Amino acid sequence: MCEANAYLLTDSGETLVMEAVDDVLPEKDGLKLVNIFGEQKFLRAAIHSLSLVDHKVFLKELDS
Amino acid sequence: MCEANAYLLTDSGETLVMEAVDDVLPEKDGLKLVNIFGEQKFLRAAIHSLSLVDHKVFLKELDS
Repeated sequence: MCEANAYLLTDSGETLVMEAVDDVLPEKDGLKLVNIFGEQKFLRAAIHSLSLVDHKVFLKELDS
Repeated sequence: MCEANAYLLTDSGETLVMEAVDDVLPEKDGLKLVNIFGEQKFLRAAIHSLSLVDHKVFLKELDS
């Protein structure tokens, strides 16, 4: 399996928002994250960067 | 290893732009892709969506 952990980048560092993420999909004002267990999470964020060999997806909050 | 293939989404479908991508990093007006062989590619694009279990990263060209 090739899932990754999703982290939200903040001024103070990175915060884990979801583990074992499979799909990241654009939705309205943000992103829908779906993990390998079928759990879903919606975030007002965009994909910032990826480090796939480290299993990391970095997200950045959208300006409100 | 957990690299993915990067595809550019176009009106006519998806075009493979790089295989075995490890890092995707924001850079100036676009993205820098780095694969597991250390090869780099710059694209005027943003990350659109991910399907990690399928080893796919989808990119979308930025408006000029």
